[in-house]
Amino acid sequence: MKIICNQHDLLSSINIAQKAVPSKSTMPVLECLLIEAYDGSIKISSSNMELSIETYLTGRIDIEGQVALNAKIFSEIVRKLPDDRVTIEVDQQFVTYIYCGPAKFKISGLLGDDFPKIPNYNKNDYINISQLSLKDIIRQTIFSIGDESRNRVMTGEHFEISDNVLTMTSLDGHRISIRKTILKENYAEKDIVIPGKTLSDISKLLSDDIESEVTIYFSENNIIFEFENTIVLSRLVEGKYLNVKQMINNDYDTCIRINKRMLYECFDRASLLVRESEKKPIIIGIYDGKINLNMNTSIGSLDEEIEVEKEGKDLLIGFNPKFLMDVIKVIDDEEITIYLTNAKAPCFIRDEQGTYNYIVLPVNFNSVQ
Amino acid sequence: MKIICNQHDLLSSINIAQKAVPSKSTMPVLECLLIEAYDGSIKISSSNMELSIETYLTGRIDIEGQVALNAKIFSEIVRKLPDDRVTIEVDQQFVTYIYCGPAKFKISGLLGDDFPKIPNYNKNDYINISQLSLKDIIRQTIFSIGDESRNRVMTGEHFEISDNVLTMTSLDGHRISIRKTILKENYAEKDIVIPGKTLSDISKLLSDDIESEVTIYFSENNIIFEFENTIVLSRLVEGKYLNVKQMINNDYDTCIRINKRMLYECFDRASLLVRESEKKPIIIGIYDGKINLNMNTSIGSLDEEIEVEKEGKDLLIGFNPKFLMDVIKVIDDEEITIYLTNAKAPCFIRDEQGTYNYIVLPVNFNSVQ
Repeated sequence: MKIICNQHDLLSSINIAQKAVPSKSTMPVLECLLIEAYDGSIKISSSNMELSIETYLTGRIDIEGQVALNAKIFSEIVRKLPDDRVTIEVDQQFVTYIYCGPAKFKISGLLGDDFPKIPNYNKNDYINISQLSLKDIIRQTIFSIGDESRNRVMTGEHFEISDNVLTMTSLDGHRISIRKTILKENYAEKDIVIPGKTLSDISKLLSDDIESEVTIYFSENNIIFEFENTIVLSRLVEGKYLNVKQMINNDYDTCIRINKRMLYECFDRASLLVRESEKKPIIIGIYDGKINLNMNTSIGSLDEEIEVEKEGKDLLIGFNPKFLMDVIKVIDDEEITIYLTNAKAPCFIRDEQGTYNYIVLPVNFNSVQ
Repeated sequence: MKIICNQHDLLSSINIAQKAVPSKSTMPVLECLLIEAYDGSIKISSSNMELSIETYLTGRIDIEGQVALNAKIFSEIVRKLPDDRVTIEVDQQFVTYIYCGPAKFKISGLLGDDFPKIPNYNKNDYINISQLSLKDIIRQTIFSIGDESRNRVMTGEHFEISDNVLTMTSLDGHRISIRKTILKENYAEKDIVIPGKTLSDISKLLSDDIESEVTIYFSENNIIFEFENTIVLSRLVEGKYLNVKQMINNDYDTCIRINKRMLYECFDRASLLVRESEKKPIIIGIYDGKINLNMNTSIGSLDEEIEVEKEGKDLLIGFNPKFLMDVIKVIDDEEITIYLTNAKAPCFIRDEQGTYNYIVLPVNFNSVQ
């Protein structure tokens, strides 16, 4: 193989492909990036068996062929090359020469014919969505996926399509996050669970450009994301997601409308007083026109009062400040509305358009008062 | 005590004073910042017994007094307060109330009468130097101080004044760094050793403003830095510094003049191939008009050729690339001149004005060729 490309383009492609390289693998070839140069196109691939990435690179092919190079070494070398033309030349023994400017590197490679390939997939079953929208939805829901100690489906996010609405849901036992997005067209119904790790990796690869789209294809056990020169395939989480609809409730006895930033900053200050060993809640007293917030731990205490618009009954309720901060942080509105029932029932933070609905469980504070 | 000040000013003072707070101490009061409000001035102090800091803060004193507050908790609280007026009020039991905007914190404090004080020092024995110059010299020499395993004086830097010249020297057994600076006046001779940790802390406190000066006072065992509203006192390292003058040699058999950036980038690439377990040198072949650089390890190999102006004999010499990179990085000139004698003698990187002289020992490469 002999190819010539630009250092900057090569580095961008490597940065994309590296997302699927496992840090350690029992199959040494998976710790590599596979470079294939055939039929006029140069492709860089990676796979950790759960997630596979293929990305295409602009360049000139002088001799067709392929080589698998250790991802860490190859990426470090390319990162340190000058921004110039790079020649990669591979001999019969897969010894690889990398020439750029004054530098001539020589490293050893593998054939990589056992490298996993992205299988063919049905191009008819797909949706289109703006890259930025998908990135936003992931950011706004991923914080409440369950960890490995949870039910397996909770480590992923529920991805549902009905007509032209995409609903993504995550829950971790303390909180539920639900985000709805209107798509440009009606699509076939979908009801799948995407691994949290895949969503986190994908969101790092998506651009911030509202105009650029990503096409998502669906197959039996996989989901495929296509955007720009890149294809990402991920396995789905097997199993049926939990039915969150039955946990949603639009009744309430108390409702407050509050400045998001002021509430966030108060929780942030209250968190200073929390130590791992002593999980104290922040206690919120809700009254006409104001809320009182109080945190009292072995380190010290904090009292704050914030003006609110309030409707319904007075209420005293306790929360883990972190759980509410995670939610508030991802809401872009300046003012938020919180719906409550009593000190033991979850609170709902939702907008009128139904774009988002966050449900947070309170903490029992009677024992600690 | 009751004082009122601005959150932004208070935070700046805390950030300065925190540099001398030990992370862990057998004397709990040393983990505190001492706030003293007497005679119209508010002072924040810290000390780890080696280094002591006192910094003055603008504010209003309503009730005179003092309190010692845990540095970590107090600084975290102030950092999270809104940029507004802060009131700090201390009761008879040293319970401290911090009010700012909507937030009312309550934490416990100590009297702090056992807090170490900066002793009076002789104001006649001093020098003035620009803050930026001192910061630059520290950055350009501190990388080659010896670690704790070395002779105790090597953990500091030699600070010498003769007439109007300040010379600072550090050495770690592989390299010697010498920087000379012209002062604006002639001063009394000095020959002291300043702890490396002090220089590193001081350089973080100094401003980048070429106009601002720092006044340095000298006493028997201490050095005192005064700048803006801050006084920093450090113990000196006891003992006589090594005589580096006898190691300096202006003779050479080979001399090359080379572009600094090209040489640095080549060493940087060569370092990619070095693994901790296998300390291979970079081998430099010096010929008329060019040098060849070669690194060859179990990971792979790198060959580069760089154009140079060369004078004297051809030479083949090996170096640890990191040792040369540390030196090259802190030289601000675009072109550097390297003076060499033979493969076993140190190389000298110095300018004609005598501002800097760096000496780096080569690595024997015959055994590894």
